[in-house]
Amino acid sequence: MLFDHDDDKPREECGVVGVFGHPQASLLVALGLHALQHRGQEACGITTFDGEKFHGERHMGLVGENFGGDLTERLPGKTGIGHNRYSTQGKPAIRNIQPIYADLDSGGFAIAHNGNLTNARALRKKLVSRGSIFQSTMDTEVILHLLARSDQDTVSDRFLDAIRQIEGGFSFIGMTNKKLIGARDPSGLRPLVLGQINDAFVLASETCALDLMGADFVREIDPGEVVIITSEGMQSYNPFPSRPVRPCLFEYVYFARPDSVVQGRSVYEVRRKMGHQLAIEHPADIDVVVPVPDSGVPAAIGFSEHSGVPFQLGIIRSHYVGRTFIQPTQTGRQKAVSRKHSPNRAVLEGKRVLLVDDSIVRGNTSRKIVQMVRDAGAKEIHFRSASPPITHQDFYGIDMADRTELLAANNTTEEMREYLKVESLGFLSVPGLYRAIGVDYDAETPAFADHCFTGDYPTRLIDHDQNESSKERQLSLLD
Amino acid sequence: MLFDHDDDKPREECGVVGVFGHPQASLLVALGLHALQHRGQEACGITTFDGEKFHGERHMGLVGENFGGDLTERLPGKTGIGHNRYSTQGKPAIRNIQPIYADLDSGGFAIAHNGNLTNARALRKKLVSRGSIFQSTMDTEVILHLLARSDQDTVSDRFLDAIRQIEGGFSFIGMTNKKLIGARDPSGLRPLVLGQINDAFVLASETCALDLMGADFVREIDPGEVVIITSEGMQSYNPFPSRPVRPCLFEYVYFARPDSVVQGRSVYEVRRKMGHQLAIEHPADIDVVVPVPDSGVPAAIGFSEHSGVPFQLGIIRSHYVGRTFIQPTQTGRQKAVSRKHSPNRAVLEGKRVLLVDDSIVRGNTSRKIVQMVRDAGAKEIHFRSASPPITHQDFYGIDMADRTELLAANNTTEEMREYLKVESLGFLSVPGLYRAIGVDYDAETPAFADHCFTGDYPTRLIDHDQNESSKERQLSLLD
Amino acid sequence: MLFDHDDDKPREECGVVGVFGHPQASLLVALGLHALQHRGQEACGITTFDGEKFHGERHMGLVGENFGGDLTERLPGKTGIGHNRYSTQGKPAIRNIQPIYADLDSGGFAIAHNGNLTNARALRKKLVSRGSIFQSTMDTEVILHLLARSDQDTVSDRFLDAIRQIEGGFSFIGMTNKKLIGARDPSGLRPLVLGQINDAFVLASETCALDLMGADFVREIDPGEVVIITSEGMQSYNPFPSRPVRPCLFEYVYFARPDSVVQGRSVYEVRRKMGHQLAIEHPADIDVVVPVPDSGVPAAIGFSEHSGVPFQLGIIRSHYVGRTFIQPTQTGRQKAVSRKHSPNRAVLEGKRVLLVDDSIVRGNTSRKIVQMVRDAGAKEIHFRSASPPITHQDFYGIDMADRTELLAANNTTEEMREYLKVESLGFLSVPGLYRAIGVDYDAETPAFADHCFTGDYPTRLIDHDQNESSKERQLSLLD
Amino acid sequence: MLFDHDDDKPREECGVVGVFGHPQASLLVALGLHALQHRGQEACGITTFDGEKFHGERHMGLVGENFGGDLTERLPGKTGIGHNRYSTQGKPAIRNIQPIYADLDSGGFAIAHNGNLTNARALRKKLVSRGSIFQSTMDTEVILHLLARSDQDTVSDRFLDAIRQIEGGFSFIGMTNKKLIGARDPSGLRPLVLGQINDAFVLASETCALDLMGADFVREIDPGEVVIITSEGMQSYNPFPSRPVRPCLFEYVYFARPDSVVQGRSVYEVRRKMGHQLAIEHPADIDVVVPVPDSGVPAAIGFSEHSGVPFQLGIIRSHYVGRTFIQPTQTGRQKAVSRKHSPNRAVLEGKRVLLVDDSIVRGNTSRKIVQMVRDAGAKEIHFRSASPPITHQDFYGIDMADRTELLAANNTTEEMREYLKVESLGFLSVPGLYRAIGVDYDAETPAFADHCFTGDYPTRLIDHDQNESSKERQLSLLD
Repeated sequence: MLFDHDDDKPREECGVVGVFGHPQASLLVALGLHALQHRGQEACGITTFDGEKFHGERHMGLVGENFGGDLTERLPGKTGIGHNRYSTQGKPAIRNIQPIYADLDSGGFAIAHNGNLTNARALRKKLVSRGSIFQSTMDTEVILHLLARSDQDTVSDRFLDAIRQIEGGFSFIGMTNKKLIGARDPSGLRPLVLGQINDAFVLASETCALDLMGADFVREIDPGEVVIITSEGMQSYNPFPSRPVRPCLFEYVYFARPDSVVQGRSVYEVRRKMGHQLAIEHPADIDVVVPVPDSGVPAAIGFSEHSGVPFQLGIIRSHYVGRTFIQPTQTGRQKAVSRKHSPNRAVLEGKRVLLVDDSIVRGNTSRKIVQMVRDAGAKEIHFRSASPPITHQDFYGIDMADRTELLAANNTTEEMREYLKVESLGFLSVPGLYRAIGVDYDAETPAFADHCFTGDYPTRLIDHDQNESSKERQLSLLD
Repeated sequence: MLFDHDDDKPREECGVVGVFGHPQASLLVALGLHALQHRGQEACGITTFDGEKFHGERHMGLVGENFGGDLTERLPGKTGIGHNRYSTQGKPAIRNIQPIYADLDSGGFAIAHNGNLTNARALRKKLVSRGSIFQSTMDTEVILHLLARSDQDTVSDRFLDAIRQIEGGFSFIGMTNKKLIGARDPSGLRPLVLGQINDAFVLASETCALDLMGADFVREIDPGEVVIITSEGMQSYNPFPSRPVRPCLFEYVYFARPDSVVQGRSVYEVRRKMGHQLAIEHPADIDVVVPVPDSGVPAAIGFSEHSGVPFQLGIIRSHYVGRTFIQPTQTGRQKAVSRKHSPNRAVLEGKRVLLVDDSIVRGNTSRKIVQMVRDAGAKEIHFRSASPPITHQDFYGIDMADRTELLAANNTTEEMREYLKVESLGFLSVPGLYRAIGVDYDAETPAFADHCFTGDYPTRLIDHDQNESSKERQLSLLD
Repeated sequence: MLFDHDDDKPREECGVVGVFGHPQASLLVALGLHALQHRGQEACGITTFDGEKFHGERHMGLVGENFGGDLTERLPGKTGIGHNRYSTQGKPAIRNIQPIYADLDSGGFAIAHNGNLTNARALRKKLVSRGSIFQSTMDTEVILHLLARSDQDTVSDRFLDAIRQIEGGFSFIGMTNKKLIGARDPSGLRPLVLGQINDAFVLASETCALDLMGADFVREIDPGEVVIITSEGMQSYNPFPSRPVRPCLFEYVYFARPDSVVQGRSVYEVRRKMGHQLAIEHPADIDVVVPVPDSGVPAAIGFSEHSGVPFQLGIIRSHYVGRTFIQPTQTGRQKAVSRKHSPNRAVLEGKRVLLVDDSIVRGNTSRKIVQMVRDAGAKEIHFRSASPPITHQDFYGIDMADRTELLAANNTTEEMREYLKVESLGFLSVPGLYRAIGVDYDAETPAFADHCFTGDYPTRLIDHDQNESSKERQLSLLD
Repeated sequence: MLFDHDDDKPREECGVVGVFGHPQASLLVALGLHALQHRGQEACGITTFDGEKFHGERHMGLVGENFGGDLTERLPGKTGIGHNRYSTQGKPAIRNIQPIYADLDSGGFAIAHNGNLTNARALRKKLVSRGSIFQSTMDTEVILHLLARSDQDTVSDRFLDAIRQIEGGFSFIGMTNKKLIGARDPSGLRPLVLGQINDAFVLASETCALDLMGADFVREIDPGEVVIITSEGMQSYNPFPSRPVRPCLFEYVYFARPDSVVQGRSVYEVRRKMGHQLAIEHPADIDVVVPVPDSGVPAAIGFSEHSGVPFQLGIIRSHYVGRTFIQPTQTGRQKAVSRKHSPNRAVLEGKRVLLVDDSIVRGNTSRKIVQMVRDAGAKEIHFRSASPPITHQDFYGIDMADRTELLAANNTTEEMREYLKVESLGFLSVPGLYRAIGVDYDAETPAFADHCFTGDYPTRLIDHDQNESSKERQLSLLD
């Protein structure tokens, strides 16, 4: 219950970084991964090529705990790729950490992946029946086997051949002894940006990684685009049939770091405008606006700005959360208290408090926070979600609850208000969310992947439709 | 350089917790230490007594990483004490982690200590010359040896006898097989509060620990007070000669968690008022108020409130900081960029920015942050410190730089402004700081220990005055 | 130089164990592996199947260090296989430890292997070109991929199909969720025996493993035989074309434990008779017979028995050899002294000493031992090898020196005598070795694989003949 | 039960080494400790002084596992001491590993100790009552505290002052920044020898350590002698009142390595003569003489020589014994089988076997070995102990069973024969043991400490006589 990930949040997806043509490639990859640490804290890995050999390290834990010191000695080379893992697929084991690597006929190939394939199980089943042996339980390995079995001649052609067979949300960064490859799914569900440091090329999930690496932002990789970078420069391919571009709204809502720029928009500014919009749609008679830290802060500032009600830190977040759990005690008041959030009584006592969070998933953490704020003496509590009700699951790399567990999928707003025990509850509307981004909402041809709020999925869901139970999916790879 | 502690901050001191008479003592101590994690992240330890035997564990790292799961099995008992270490004395080694323990003539005795003794070296020298063998390099061990050698009959009398011989800033929590002991230095330099959970007694450095443990706040331990808790109840002693009470101002400025209450005042509210005061003393013509996170946030909110200029998160702080270091690269821009703070360009670009931090110690981090904000496009940068210039060292447990390194000890405000490369620089005045706390400033009989700003030390500095070089102090205990 | 494996010895090969139908399968496998620890000390692994799932652990180090305690809980199931690794192929890495496992189309399959394939590289190359991805650098993985790609219907047929394609020396033990499989190469180069504990079947490299497991010896698996054990009982197959049976002589000379029975003969007795034969072929006028411990002991006892000269422990062997190295000092006498063997001066001083060792490979250790015995005061030193001169490399799993390093491949006996600095040197003859075993020597149709002494290899050497340099063989799998 | 220490053996005591005046002191100490590894395998430690600072490392496990590689960098200096621990006192914890070190008034002092004090508890109690704080549960620490509290002026005088107060069996090696000190108890119970490497001095428990270090044997340190070595040379002191010299017989029987020379006698030769003597005192009509390896080998060779019956390895000992335990299975035959000893059926089957072991302590291992030999088909089994019946406990550093557990203390020879289930049982007589050593036995003034066989203790047993229960002795030091 406590010390764990906020179970009321859409959980983080992964972060990927690639560097081509820089003498300190591994160091830059490590910096980029550190900047993307919010996208996955379970494990991290880096692979490099030094002109003769591939080098690789994969570790459980944070980038800053594992990749320090003599990095360019440990992982030499001018080309490198890296990955922060937040497991959406595959149990925690060293061999389920990326990048993954294979000795192919054509030489070594390493790949890192953010996202989730919607036909991975079907492809894997076919490959195994034809004699492929998988070494991990990760969807990502499918692409390696497709590549290995392609009858095309060049690695580039084999990669394009392989990638055409997959569906879902993905950003891939791959490398050979001569190439760095980037690829983004045709809907643009998962992000990937391109940067440069002098002559060196950089790929990363977000612009905040470019900033820390000291790279100049060049452009986003287009949805459906594959870029292949060699010492000759960069070539762009578009191997997929054309389909509507619909980037994932959750990058704005929760995933991206506030200092990142997504599709030309400051994430921080979009979130602040969500607060403005929320204040327009769901005003309240209150004394203080309090964010649920850290993700609710920009929208709370926005709400405060628009409403004129003071913004105060009524909840203090502890950042010292370790990997083991302290079991809760049985003493009464204790139960509702989290090890992560503490009430700031001086701000809350006797006040009409408006809490702002980025979203509500299962609702249990929100309910605990409300109880904690109530115990600290708040006179009234009004809850605002800076995103619309989450009524549908994601299948592209966001590890949310099953639909049966999604609070908004199974309850009316009034039922949710009662469950959370608040005086009022308000969600940003779907059109309001689009407005905060600065785009008109059109339910027929929506500009973003808004399936979690609308049920309108941007791709087929092959694995899901084959209706295999998650138990049948269990793979038994050992160790 | 990077990934390290903010070298521009007075560093954290230690946190201590004690529980008497609760069946889950170790669990409560762990919760209390977790709430006090901001006071020391290097190491942590817990000692308990289960009616027959003492149990103890000491670890490098965070409470949440080390004390989880089956804690009441690992460390059973109804009495327990714990310690978070931020090393102000003694090199990092398991045996320099507290609580420390000794088998005395009268039975086992364990002790945990926050603070620093100003006559520890003198006492240690005397004890060694009389044949005491020290097992650590910690000042804390001195009290154990004084206790062991006391000719008093009872443990209580021996503790009072021992404690009378020491000087400096300290909060001690000690335990025997029958007692929990708390002690606070006569000036009240280091904090210690008393709480209760039903019949169980709790001692802790701050009230935020009581909150997380589910304990009711009873009162602060008075400066110079020793409390001895047994199954009969609590007895209070005052073994020290009377002297002026002068609690340390840095609890308000930096150490205490914002949700703690110190001497009846909300730390968050005091900091917000420092911001008000700062806006009065050093106004500026600006577009945005930006805190240096996290410690500058409440004062920045206060500055914004008083000045009417918007508060925005112009600097994003990463909380994923590991224990190894990523070496900086040589690429130009890189050098000025920290792995801990990132600029939020959307807030800063083209703006006249006022940065608010809690204090300036050596100035190097502040200078780097200013450079980073400038690189992000700020048009003007105005820097405000929510505390007065730090001109003198502390000797009571705050591990700041030597006086030669203190920026304000060696430079005028104008020189500091030039060093930091800002358009304007302002420090809160000493009377202004007192005013934010709600106390009148009287330089003759100051209500607080303000020596860092004034040079007016509340105690003798015996070890320091004997002028032993720090080299002579080096102790050679092995392993 | 020191603390290492005797570089004058043919190094150990691997040990394999399998159990079918016993509720404590993992425990029995661990006992069997412990009895076979002399065949490989680098790493060990066990895989079991509990009726629902496969379980596996692989560790660096000894069986007794890794597999203790709650083994049947950690590795439950009635079927299990295990492996002791002495690396003849593949660098030390967890994923190069056996058993190796794959999820095949038909379900899980695990395999452990003793020996070396002589066409592994050729097969691997072909498999990779057809899109197989290898996860280790072990030859053993080839059989898994052949199995995965076989177009036969049943696992049994697929295994027989796969095994027909390989050449070399091998004993395989494999398992599925329903079967235990054993296989031995058609020449019978590597050993494999069958035992029973009540209704449970046991396979192991040597009979000493059966003894420790409490199993009854049933028979040896025949050269070229494949046995497939199910709950219905055992079925025997012979998938290979007929070829001469030639078991490896080195099992008698060095590998097998003295208390094992190989092809119906006590290894201890065979070695003792080698000593008799050696005394007949190379008598000497001496005072004392001294074994080079431990492998020279039985032959030295035999030499003493036949010659009537007393057997004494003139060299003491230390069994406390750790994993790091103590560097040699520069002090003169020091250089010749090993950390493994110490001279027993009381036995050696002033004596005419005859040293008996099992074999001489590169000669450096022998030379050092002679020097050590000389320094201890021996008047004369006569050296006897209980096996013939080793003139040719092995390619079936014995990790000896390259041919260029084999002392006997490049020197006459007189040159070797001078190199070793002994008064006389004698090797057992090839016919003498056969005689000790009790078999007549026929150079045309030899009953054993004696290629190391004669150059007459029992199989084709495909990989070797394709003359790929060992550098080209380097595989680059990461981590 | 299995994989453990032979519970039928007097367990090993500790080994100590010291070097003065050699640039590679730590390396030499490590070599010496490796040669003395048989005296203690639980832990090891080395302390050095490099002219400025003391350096130290203490580890669980073997010398060769912990002290390799860059030792002279890790532990620089020309003076060093080391210790192999077999715990006779104190639970396994890093701080209970020696050498132990203290910063005294006079500077650093390190000490390593082989043996056991018989008045340690009494002294400790007195020291604690006077305010000394112990950091370990080792008797050895007593000497440090006595030293720290001595009112003598020089370290030498303080050491002599301290050592006069202790009783028992001990060899101490101590060091300061200027001195190496060696001391041996006045009865000479524990051994200590002096050697030289050019100008450097060496102290060690046995001569085999000198051999491996490349040092020349100079002489034994006399019972009751204290030597203090400085750059001026060596000075000898005799601080103790005169008392009969009685070295411990168990060095000959079991402890010392066979290649060591004790009191001018080869240990191997003495053991061989025990075998001769045993053949005279307890002949038998047998087919084969089989040693219980490794400690029974020399006496078995001697028995074979004198009786003319062949010596054969009927029991094979595994040296691959790890640190965890494989639990025994329940299958019948299994129970009697050890993981350490295996029967060599070819030698035993159908034979009248005479087993020779060095001693019988509790008898359980002997009984299991007999059962194992019987199961392997032996027709008759005759058991011979190369030492007399052990009827009394040792208090000087040999960790044998309590008297209640000593087989010979509670049974007649016939009862023991029945317990072991052998056809005949014979112990070497006390006069016979003296005769093997070459000394006449005189029960009035015995030349050796033979208390284990006779009950005639060479010193007072103060702690034991004060009759404190072992429970009261339990010390509660934490961690």
